[in-house]
Amino acid sequence: MSDRRLRELLEGVRDGSCDVDSAVGRLRHMPFEDLGFAKVDHHRELRHGMPEVVLGQGKTVAEVRAISAKLLERSPNLLVTRATEAMFQAVQELDGHAEFFPRSRAIRVWGDRQERGKAKIAVVCAGTSDIAVAEEAVVTAEVMGNAVETVYDVGVAGIHRLLHRLDRLNSARVVICCAGMEGALPSAVGGLVSVPVIAVPTSVGYGASFNGLSALLGMLNSCSSNVSVVNIDNGFGAAYVATLINRL
Amino acid sequence: MSDRRLRELLEGVRDGSCDVDSAVGRLRHMPFEDLGFAKVDHHRELRHGMPEVVLGQGKTVAEVRAISAKLLERSPNLLVTRATEAMFQAVQELDGHAEFFPRSRAIRVWGDRQERGKAKIAVVCAGTSDIAVAEEAVVTAEVMGNAVETVYDVGVAGIHRLLHRLDRLNSARVVICCAGMEGALPSAVGGLVSVPVIAVPTSVGYGASFNGLSALLGMLNSCSSNVSVVNIDNGFGAAYVATLINRL
Amino acid sequence: MSDRRLRELLEGVRDGSCDVDSAVGRLRHMPFEDLGFAKVDHHRELRHGMPEVVLGQGKTVAEVRAISAKLLERSPNLLVTRATEAMFQAVQELDGHAEFFPRSRAIRVWGDRQERGKAKIAVVCAGTSDIAVAEEAVVTAEVMGNAVETVYDVGVAGIHRLLHRLDRLNSARVVICCAGMEGALPSAVGGLVSVPVIAVPTSVGYGASFNGLSALLGMLNSCSSNVSVVNIDNGFGAAYVATLINRL
Amino acid sequence: MSDRRLRELLEGVRDGSCDVDSAVGRLRHMPFEDLGFAKVDHHRELRHGMPEVVLGQGKTVAEVRAISAKLLERSPNLLVTRATEAMFQAVQELDGHAEFFPRSRAIRVWGDRQERGKAKIAVVCAGTSDIAVAEEAVVTAEVMGNAVETVYDVGVAGIHRLLHRLDRLNSARVVICCAGMEGALPSAVGGLVSVPVIAVPTSVGYGASFNGLSALLGMLNSCSSNVSVVNIDNGFGAAYVATLINRL
Amino acid sequence: MSDRRLRELLEGVRDGSCDVDSAVGRLRHMPFEDLGFAKVDHHRELRHGMPEVVLGQGKTVAEVRAISAKLLERSPNLLVTRATEAMFQAVQELDGHAEFFPRSRAIRVWGDRQERGKAKIAVVCAGTSDIAVAEEAVVTAEVMGNAVETVYDVGVAGIHRLLHRLDRLNSARVVICCAGMEGALPSAVGGLVSVPVIAVPTSVGYGASFNGLSALLGMLNSCSSNVSVVNIDNGFGAAYVATLINRL
Amino acid sequence: MSDRRLRELLEGVRDGSCDVDSAVGRLRHMPFEDLGFAKVDHHRELRHGMPEVVLGQGKTVAEVRAISAKLLERSPNLLVTRATEAMFQAVQELDGHAEFFPRSRAIRVWGDRQERGKAKIAVVCAGTSDIAVAEEAVVTAEVMGNAVETVYDVGVAGIHRLLHRLDRLNSARVVICCAGMEGALPSAVGGLVSVPVIAVPTSVGYGASFNGLSALLGMLNSCSSNVSVVNIDNGFGAAYVATLINRL
Amino acid sequence: MSDRRLRELLEGVRDGSCDVDSAVGRLRHMPFEDLGFAKVDHHRELRHGMPEVVLGQGKTVAEVRAISAKLLERSPNLLVTRATEAMFQAVQELDGHAEFFPRSRAIRVWGDRQERGKAKIAVVCAGTSDIAVAEEAVVTAEVMGNAVETVYDVGVAGIHRLLHRLDRLNSARVVICCAGMEGALPSAVGGLVSVPVIAVPTSVGYGASFNGLSALLGMLNSCSSNVSVVNIDNGFGAAYVATLINRL
Amino acid sequence: MSDRRLRELLEGVRDGSCDVDSAVGRLRHMPFEDLGFAKVDHHRELRHGMPEVVLGQGKTVAEVRAISAKLLERSPNLLVTRATEAMFQAVQELDGHAEFFPRSRAIRVWGDRQERGKAKIAVVCAGTSDIAVAEEAVVTAEVMGNAVETVYDVGVAGIHRLLHRLDRLNSARVVICCAGMEGALPSAVGGLVSVPVIAVPTSVGYGASFNGLSALLGMLNSCSSNVSVVNIDNGFGAAYVATLINRL
Repeated sequence: MSDRRLRELLEGVRDGSCDVDSAVGRLRHMPFEDLGFAKVDHHRELRHGMPEVVLGQGKTVAEVRAISAKLLERSPNLLVTRATEAMFQAVQELDGHAEFFPRSRAIRVWGDRQERGKAKIAVVCAGTSDIAVAEEAVVTAEVMGNAVETVYDVGVAGIHRLLHRLDRLNSARVVICCAGMEGALPSAVGGLVSVPVIAVPTSVGYGASFNGLSALLGMLNSCSSNVSVVNIDNGFGAAYVATLINRL
Repeated sequence: MSDRRLRELLEGVRDGSCDVDSAVGRLRHMPFEDLGFAKVDHHRELRHGMPEVVLGQGKTVAEVRAISAKLLERSPNLLVTRATEAMFQAVQELDGHAEFFPRSRAIRVWGDRQERGKAKIAVVCAGTSDIAVAEEAVVTAEVMGNAVETVYDVGVAGIHRLLHRLDRLNSARVVICCAGMEGALPSAVGGLVSVPVIAVPTSVGYGASFNGLSALLGMLNSCSSNVSVVNIDNGFGAAYVATLINRL
Repeated sequence: MSDRRLRELLEGVRDGSCDVDSAVGRLRHMPFEDLGFAKVDHHRELRHGMPEVVLGQGKTVAEVRAISAKLLERSPNLLVTRATEAMFQAVQELDGHAEFFPRSRAIRVWGDRQERGKAKIAVVCAGTSDIAVAEEAVVTAEVMGNAVETVYDVGVAGIHRLLHRLDRLNSARVVICCAGMEGALPSAVGGLVSVPVIAVPTSVGYGASFNGLSALLGMLNSCSSNVSVVNIDNGFGAAYVATLINRL
Repeated sequence: MSDRRLRELLEGVRDGSCDVDSAVGRLRHMPFEDLGFAKVDHHRELRHGMPEVVLGQGKTVAEVRAISAKLLERSPNLLVTRATEAMFQAVQELDGHAEFFPRSRAIRVWGDRQERGKAKIAVVCAGTSDIAVAEEAVVTAEVMGNAVETVYDVGVAGIHRLLHRLDRLNSARVVICCAGMEGALPSAVGGLVSVPVIAVPTSVGYGASFNGLSALLGMLNSCSSNVSVVNIDNGFGAAYVATLINRL
Repeated sequence: MSDRRLRELLEGVRDGSCDVDSAVGRLRHMPFEDLGFAKVDHHRELRHGMPEVVLGQGKTVAEVRAISAKLLERSPNLLVTRATEAMFQAVQELDGHAEFFPRSRAIRVWGDRQERGKAKIAVVCAGTSDIAVAEEAVVTAEVMGNAVETVYDVGVAGIHRLLHRLDRLNSARVVICCAGMEGALPSAVGGLVSVPVIAVPTSVGYGASFNGLSALLGMLNSCSSNVSVVNIDNGFGAAYVATLINRL
Repeated sequence: MSDRRLRELLEGVRDGSCDVDSAVGRLRHMPFEDLGFAKVDHHRELRHGMPEVVLGQGKTVAEVRAISAKLLERSPNLLVTRATEAMFQAVQELDGHAEFFPRSRAIRVWGDRQERGKAKIAVVCAGTSDIAVAEEAVVTAEVMGNAVETVYDVGVAGIHRLLHRLDRLNSARVVICCAGMEGALPSAVGGLVSVPVIAVPTSVGYGASFNGLSALLGMLNSCSSNVSVVNIDNGFGAAYVATLINRL
Repeated sequence: MSDRRLRELLEGVRDGSCDVDSAVGRLRHMPFEDLGFAKVDHHRELRHGMPEVVLGQGKTVAEVRAISAKLLERSPNLLVTRATEAMFQAVQELDGHAEFFPRSRAIRVWGDRQERGKAKIAVVCAGTSDIAVAEEAVVTAEVMGNAVETVYDVGVAGIHRLLHRLDRLNSARVVICCAGMEGALPSAVGGLVSVPVIAVPTSVGYGASFNGLSALLGMLNSCSSNVSVVNIDNGFGAAYVATLINRL
Repeated sequence: MSDRRLRELLEGVRDGSCDVDSAVGRLRHMPFEDLGFAKVDHHRELRHGMPEVVLGQGKTVAEVRAISAKLLERSPNLLVTRATEAMFQAVQELDGHAEFFPRSRAIRVWGDRQERGKAKIAVVCAGTSDIAVAEEAVVTAEVMGNAVETVYDVGVAGIHRLLHRLDRLNSARVVICCAGMEGALPSAVGGLVSVPVIAVPTSVGYGASFNGLSALLGMLNSCSSNVSVVNIDNGFGAAYVATLINRL
């Protein structure tokens, strides 16, 4: 029920052209969506203060360009995940400041760089091959208004490398931890910090890594109680959750 | 290296009975754990302010009793998860205020009820069979110093029941969401709130639920970006993560 | 918003004590659940004309008894699935006409036997061990107001037995087809009839049947296009879907 | 045994040129298919009133062209699923009115547009990436004589979008519901409508979606009892089942 | 249609009391099973010369007793697989010569000991724990009229033990090979003999044997081309196939 | 120990240059393979009368050419499975009579066409897409000296098509049965014939067929006791087993 | 061929009663097992110097007693794995020095305590629940003649505890590492030591640990290159491999 | 803490400018990594005497070139695994003695050929397709200072071929055993030798080999107790473990 129709109904009540009983009945049976829930939802998005995000995968270059153009009209920040080089060129035509991150395949327009998080987010990863996923988390966290600290190449097979960076880990309000293969890093990191750890299994590995299943199961079974897990290779999702925590 | 041994070494340096070079050498080759990392770790636990927690599963009644006795000496709060009735009786002899929660099989001594969280934690569950897991989350969250709001029996097949409780959900700083079968609830809840959602798949279901695998996969693939996941039936872990978030 | 509160608001508008603008605003921001969606949902249940159903599994005898008592107050029919002998005795005390079906572990009170389906539902099963699941479908379909035709023990290894019963199959408006092991029966049945076939994989089998997984996969891959599938051992669900179809 | 041959045999009996014993013998040992079962089968197809359908996958362009030519001789409608652009060009040469749907890779000749269904079929999908599968369902349902209502992009993470379209859902006699990732949509839709819901898991997603396995398991475990499931990405099959239901 | 009814129809045609057209019609619409397909099927069983077999699993003692009584009326041999001690006592009351094999849980009445196979069947097994499955194969093969040679405890980890028995293997017309754990034995045996090898994976093992899955996959991937496989623990099925081969 | 060396040793014994004790010792410790087991093995191959077979997959064109050249020197028949067009051209240069079967990717030189089997092998397949695998079985069975009868496109969804061909099935001494998707055909065929059925699951299908896993599990769980199974898409292996049976 | 028979043959050659040609022939065609390969095998066992080991699982008490009695006649050491209390009592009657380890369910007679390993074997485990498996490794390693150093309760979530014990780890020639849940410990240990690490996944955990699968996959994907893996819960196997390494 | 900083602190203690208490405090809270653990780690690598290894997969040619250049400065040996032809050309420009192994995709610079192992490592493989993985093991083992003996094409289907090479197997101090398909070879080899066997499952096979899963499970369930397992296709890891064993 649009504003106009609701107003007409109430005016009818006021005018006496519609009695209370029938007004109750009409309100009762009105499709509730007409009461403006989309607006409520819109408010929720505004409340989050999140930039608009486009999933490039499964879209054409034209679609990405069209959606991006529309979003850039109302937001200074834009993120396109799982994008292609061609999508980047299309977005760059819309906004010359667009950046492309080939490893993580992310396109970013980062006009509004105001920090909204309360502290830093640390993004940790095990091996150099996990950096693609970590980078998606970093790019996302930054464009959503977080200061980010990266701690790369600190797999559990060389635990001293991780211990070397303990200060960086301890300066963060939330830690994102990306690892493939056995996915053991979040357990080790979780035991060293006292903040929430968002674990991201990566599809890095071969054979019995089964495209990230091994790392996923490892993280779900972590003996560190401060670890929760997102989908395989989902650097974006980890950064989204971390952003919400960092703004609390 | 205990305090004493380190002190002796330094006194030797001060006294001249040990020259700097050999002191450097001895420090260099000392097992670093002697430098008191256990204490650091101990500090970390104190910093968390978490009560001691015992996993009952795989332990004998005597073991649970002994550990509980030791822990109750230094902490007014105690949690034993996955416990038995017999374990409860043993703990009750130690502390008459011990409570037992048969559904979730948790034993709790809740002497210090000071609230340490910044706001409420909402614990949501889909069906009545999921309450066992939700209860473990509630009992844990409470004993760790959080105010808890429960929203039970709001599965996605009756979405209006969930919408009815939107206010309760929106009053929480973090939401724990337990569901078995298709595990769809966190996606729906995640779309309605603007705070982190910790999803707990439960082993409730039969046939192709494969003891919680179905719910687990569903939650990992959630289309709501504010969802992260813990292990199947891990109400304790969800409450632990939620507590850390609620204290930030 | 209860009826009373809505009525007060509208009376305020009529009386002029509340102007239209503020009434629009209050309606706009009212929690929509207060508009009576539970009632809408209630209507939906009435519209279905389905009897109340209780899932016995995971409930205590006392809980089943209490719920059943409440339901029997407002409905002449009751179904408790996955029940125990003890649950049956409790329900029997409430209603002496209660029946128990040990094979399928179903309790039924069947007071209102009016037929509501347009035609018959055929329930087919492959081996004698599948009868437990088939029986759950039969008991459910009957108590929901359908005439049921059973065609048992017609596995594909003896295809002539199935062909013998073709007339019974062809007299049905919808066919429920239960099979374990290789789950091939729905494909054969689907090729012989021109109505929808609801396939129910059963956990009957051993070894590589993996508790019904083999039958489930077989049915999902059926080369007969008129087959859709429900969960392993879910005779109830199949009958529910079949009832909806039979009432169309 | 064709009509003619059977008639000749019986005329032989009548004429005395064939005695009863040898007629019994010949009938007994005749392949029963000669008694016209092929025709029965043919009748079944006619009774269904379904257009001919060709599965493009695994066939050459020449094969698709040849089969299509033959089918178009006796039917004004044709559907080729999982086809290629090259197949479309071949079919278009046969019939200039052929349409191609690149997203769902379907070729359709829709000469006879008579509506045979009793009411509308609603085709619902969760995300924009699921539209490919939904489109296959739409194209199939239309060419089989159904009015179709589409409700796209109504994933459970934005439940209000789904509620907005409740009227469209409620106008349908059967609902097809396509979703990838966690596959939660059919549960939510199933709770809102009182008609059968055919759930189609899609292979949309990544990581732990395991090419649609996650959505498939979710749908099989749906807490909405009016949901049955077809194979991953099987929009065609869902539309076939829905058509049968809509004609009842 | 029994012989009698068919004969009456034809006599009517001969007599003129039934014209050809209506005879065609009646034959066309007669359920074809009446043409004696059940009898054909019956003949097939007779042709096999197989004794009647009862699957004990999932049946009550009373049911097994009743079926056995009926079968023993018309056959001197009986096999009940996956039976219990109680079932054995019931069968023993019917026939004092009944034997029970506790390891394989088989009941056998072996009245007719005529050899029907052309040569011997060798039953080979890897470890002592596999003997339960091997015994089911032996008991079955014997009661179906085969001479059986057993070669037990010849796992591939002690290949010389297998080579020791090469003469026994080479005297067989078909080899049944039971193995759990890695299931490697059929490959080794298959390379040593020039006859068909029926491989039976057993559920013997622990951990990553996954209840026989490991052995099953191993056997399906055998590098010996003369190996085919039956279900996990299916000694009966292997003996059935071997019997058919041995009678050729 | 070659013939020569063994002879020398024995001549030493005869001549007295080697005493019995040391001869026993040398024989005892001689590597037994020198006693000519390779020859035994060679005899086994000759006894089988099988042509040489080359697995093309994983080999270069040059390797296939070299091996084929060597094999063709001593055998009039050659089979290369899973070959490429380029491999065929290389083999054709060696022997102008070489045939290529693109669907099954088999190369065959069939010089010696003598029939060695006792009767026919029937090769049955469910859908047209399964023909590639069936063809591998046919090509293999023929080149190994069997008469082959093919029965294609007789899936269980149109059971009458299978019944139409019952005579062909019944004329065979062993049946090879290829099917993808739900893999139900071997159960139906197994119930209709009284000879061994070798089931070949094919990777035909999509979604929950999981590349043939669905068909494989279905066949392993067949309710027809005369069915044994080979690896997915292994038409060659099925023909090999069938050949051994057909020669018995 | 026994020694005697071989000797007779050679004496015949020496005596001239058997000519060389026929002796070659007889040796050529003798079943090679008669040449004493069992003895060779027996030698191999003696060379290993391993005590006799009995797998209790799947054997009756009587069988375990009988086998143990026989083994104790010729060896001062005995190990029965996966045994029961009743088996222990039976063995204790045979040898009063028998020990029982209830956690690991091992029975040990340890008469000969001579150390045969070159250095120590370290047995490390992650949590207290893993001790059952670790104990099986310890008991096995000891009875096979190794000095054993245990390092328990050093999970990666408290990495400092592991570092505390670095000296113990570094004193070992081979490390056995038992862990359930995420199975991360071998990666951390492997990075700290420069000797082979034998990883034993345990079935400790719940939910997505899938009875040890999670730990198994984690260990197979270890980023530490000095890790190899044995079956889930296979403490015995790990100790066996470690013993072989420690004796090199 | 660098040497310099530690020295300054100690000099302060000696000089009296820093008292013992504050020195203890500073040492207690110093990040321990500053104490030179990286150096310790460096020492560990030197102690191993292992050449530097680069994983080519997931790196660019430029990255491989840069890393290789740096490593070649301080080591005469270099190994790049899972490399490309282009990577080889880049490395060859750095060092003209670089070799490329196309089958295993390994690049090797083998300047220092000193043997460091105590005896030979045997590398065994089942089929010719497994040679790629075996070659990676050989190339790795050689460059790490081991003499290597290869025993190829000795699958269990032709067990005599394996027995022929028993002497080669028995001359090794550790055996690496590569096999795909059913992965049975390590069990057979393990039974023939008295040294540790490192089993490498390969992804060779099709259908139910599931990319090496079948071989992996087979090897984990080996009935030979001297077998441990590494990841699928991990020839490098097997050689690394074998090298450590061979140096003991």
